[in-house]
Amino acid sequence: MKLLLISNSTNAGEAYLGWPQGFIQDFLLKHGIRKVVFIPYAGVNLSAVSLTKSYDIYEERVSGVFRTLGFELVSVHQASDPKQAIQQAECIVVGGGNTFHLVSMMHETAIMSLIRQKVSEGTPYIGWSAGANVACPTLRTTNDMPIIEPASFDCLNLIPFQINPHYLDANPEGHGGETRQQRIEEFLALNRDITVAGLREASLLEMEDGKLILKGHRSLRVFNFGKEPSEYEVGTDMSFLLK
Amino acid sequence: MKLLLISNSTNAGEAYLGWPQGFIQDFLLKHGIRKVVFIPYAGVNLSAVSLTKSYDIYEERVSGVFRTLGFELVSVHQASDPKQAIQQAECIVVGGGNTFHLVSMMHETAIMSLIRQKVSEGTPYIGWSAGANVACPTLRTTNDMPIIEPASFDCLNLIPFQINPHYLDANPEGHGGETRQQRIEEFLALNRDITVAGLREASLLEMEDGKLILKGHRSLRVFNFGKEPSEYEVGTDMSFLLK
Repeated sequence: MKLLLISNSTNAGEAYLGWPQGFIQDFLLKHGIRKVVFIPYAGVNLSAVSLTKSYDIYEERVSGVFRTLGFELVSVHQASDPKQAIQQAECIVVGGGNTFHLVSMMHETAIMSLIRQKVSEGTPYIGWSAGANVACPTLRTTNDMPIIEPASFDCLNLIPFQINPHYLDANPEGHGGETRQQRIEEFLALNRDITVAGLREASLLEMEDGKLILKGHRSLRVFNFGKEPSEYEVGTDMSFLLK
Repeated sequence: MKLLLISNSTNAGEAYLGWPQGFIQDFLLKHGIRKVVFIPYAGVNLSAVSLTKSYDIYEERVSGVFRTLGFELVSVHQASDPKQAIQQAECIVVGGGNTFHLVSMMHETAIMSLIRQKVSEGTPYIGWSAGANVACPTLRTTNDMPIIEPASFDCLNLIPFQINPHYLDANPEGHGGETRQQRIEEFLALNRDITVAGLREASLLEMEDGKLILKGHRSLRVFNFGKEPSEYEVGTDMSFLLK
């Protein structure tokens, strides 16, 4: 499989999709992609009059960036037959936003299993934030608010472990809620056989030829039940997570 | 109905259940309660060897505080017949932790509808954090990680609006994820008829004789679709939220 699983679209204070642009362009060029199909369903925009309008706004924003990188982008919500659009896609790109809404819509439109099959067969896949989360077995390590109840928490299951995107170490000062590490430990208490990768902002996991490599600018924190978390530096071969 | 809906058990740096103790004692005294039934299912403790052990630890911690306040506490997980324990309860107390696990277990043990009925008929109810969230129509405004898939997102529906407990204004510095306000606005974009109350730490909502009053130490932020959020000071009669 060919996967580019990105923690976050945008670092604070930078341009939209700023930091991962080079990685996205490299990935698309080396896999010979010219045109991608975009999944906008994580985008829930309060200012939009409707969800369709919200997807339009999201598509325009992302396609603007992809255009400057030399690639064409069309959103699946524009297709008269979304399943056919997925079937014919050269590459699938899943944007961030609300993971519950993304998963809900991917089940509702029946593209979840279709994308799983396409990507398993070799179609390159790029996802950031919710789009990285949905590559996992389930959505159970998202940070997002459950604003809608999806038909199921099951996701694409392209990798056998869970990513926690936007992984961060501390809470805002004086805040008494759980830290991210505590939340992941709660997950592990119930799901003892599953590994969680805390993917910090400005970092990504790239899979190619059966190898999984950590790239970007921050170390990765790996959590397993009953063990101290481990830190891995950028450039590390993380393929052991695939077993 | 008689409700005490508390944002958080404990402020950073303070003793467990420190700040709300006075409110809890007042509430129990004025309603003539001597013994409460505790719902421990939000407690998922990594160090415990089993969930039952996790509930034991949680019960011990909370009953210790209630004892110093002059009240007896027994946990529903100790009851041979949990439904009977609820039926006979003088007061129901729902502790915080993971909302998804709480809701999952409340559906699984079939005490969700039973508690709804008991509290609607006048049995006093105290909940903090997840326990405040579960008094709402659904769990859709929790901040917790969806570590388990509940049979349904539906909750007790004791109040007609959603509480966001631990409401906070800012993100940790340099973090690019959504702010709490942005998350709530996403909720409103999909759920336009529902009001969300951002209940900051160290504050609570008390209901008695059909009146809902904000108490504690912080103002409440109220969100409605298409409107600027409003701030309400401690002591305000918030009964308009019940309409």
